[in-house]
Amino acid sequence: MKVERYKRDLDHSYTLGATLTFELMKLRPDLALRVFICSDTQMTDSTKELIAICEKNHVEVEKNDKAFNILSPKGNCYVIGMFRKEKQKMEAGDHLMFVNPSDAGNMGTILRTATGFGYKDIAIIAPAVDVYDPKTVRASMGALFHVRVEYFDTIDDYRKLFEDNHRYAFMLTSSKDLEEVKTASPYTLIYGNEATGLPEEYASFCETVIITHSKEIDSLNLPMAAGISMYRFRRK
Amino acid sequence: MKVERYKRDLDHSYTLGATLTFELMKLRPDLALRVFICSDTQMTDSTKELIAICEKNHVEVEKNDKAFNILSPKGNCYVIGMFRKEKQKMEAGDHLMFVNPSDAGNMGTILRTATGFGYKDIAIIAPAVDVYDPKTVRASMGALFHVRVEYFDTIDDYRKLFEDNHRYAFMLTSSKDLEEVKTASPYTLIYGNEATGLPEEYASFCETVIITHSKEIDSLNLPMAAGISMYRFRRK
Repeated sequence: MKVERYKRDLDHSYTLGATLTFELMKLRPDLALRVFICSDTQMTDSTKELIAICEKNHVEVEKNDKAFNILSPKGNCYVIGMFRKEKQKMEAGDHLMFVNPSDAGNMGTILRTATGFGYKDIAIIAPAVDVYDPKTVRASMGALFHVRVEYFDTIDDYRKLFEDNHRYAFMLTSSKDLEEVKTASPYTLIYGNEATGLPEEYASFCETVIITHSKEIDSLNLPMAAGISMYRFRRK
Repeated sequence: MKVERYKRDLDHSYTLGATLTFELMKLRPDLALRVFICSDTQMTDSTKELIAICEKNHVEVEKNDKAFNILSPKGNCYVIGMFRKEKQKMEAGDHLMFVNPSDAGNMGTILRTATGFGYKDIAIIAPAVDVYDPKTVRASMGALFHVRVEYFDTIDDYRKLFEDNHRYAFMLTSSKDLEEVKTASPYTLIYGNEATGLPEEYASFCETVIITHSKEIDSLNLPMAAGISMYRFRRK
């Protein structure tokens, strides 16, 4: 099987690292295409366990040093999983929405936190970061395999499917603090781009919310704003 | 002035980028030693404003391309500030404490969030990441210049100074959820290392707390756990 550097238009991606590859094999063995180990990989108990779970699922384990040169040139990784990308559809319920997010690491942290607080369905409005970017997969620590992420070209495409969700837009121009907001389910929590936030027009079709912070910072960072509000909406 | 790659034992550090250097000049011009610009730096209005604030504070602006090769080899940075490191002392009040944190980017995000929620005094128990690492300074987006960070060799050294603070230790083994905890001020919120958490012995001299999350993740990441609990303690 040809190994090539990850690109968005590939039909597969990679789990870089043993723990992450373990998550892939435990959670979504149906997506796994192959597992690579390198000559330096130590045959510890956990490596043996990983090989066993691969055999059980008929996933080939291949010694392939070249794969590591291509996919992990820094050399701090001894196991790589290759898995098929899956086009996903959101289900009804409480949602998260990210409008034009651009940072792969941030998106991974967000998926991890979303999984921690039981949010399974995530909308992303394009253009946006690719959740299958190996950096996102890695930062998610496997949470990517717990969620359904669906991309939409426009907010209208999303609204056609889920018009009944109550929409909360997190905006620095809002005058309603997170603590004052009443939770109406099903809902969608909506966050903008890291640098530019949400376009002002979102205020016309959403209830706007702000997580009040001191004037000494311009804003909370995106995963933090998302994590704090996910937590509060789950606990209200 | 000799420019060298940042090391922990230097008496100065660097702000990589124009916005960050602006924060340095606005918040702590007394610490600024020099500002470097490179031949590619465009003379925009904000560059001119930066140069003016440097002149006003008698901080020399030097065209120095070599500094950029040494300090920002990736070449995505056109202004660098050089500033004196300051040994800081915490003041009495509500505190944050990080025991053996190891990630420079995480610590920057934490300082930014702490500043957003009005936490000014931060204890770090060594061994730990260096808050003056340019990666931390950058991730803090200037928040480093708003806080007082004091390093301690042991938790006992901290306790000798602030024994009256009520100590809350965030531990996955705790059975008390964040929502059930009563806030007793002044307090100290205590967090462990990214990978290993807090040593169990902390349960013997702290009230333990957990931010309950689903079993599908092992833990929240450190800045997220810190940010959510800072937020809740400020709003209770």
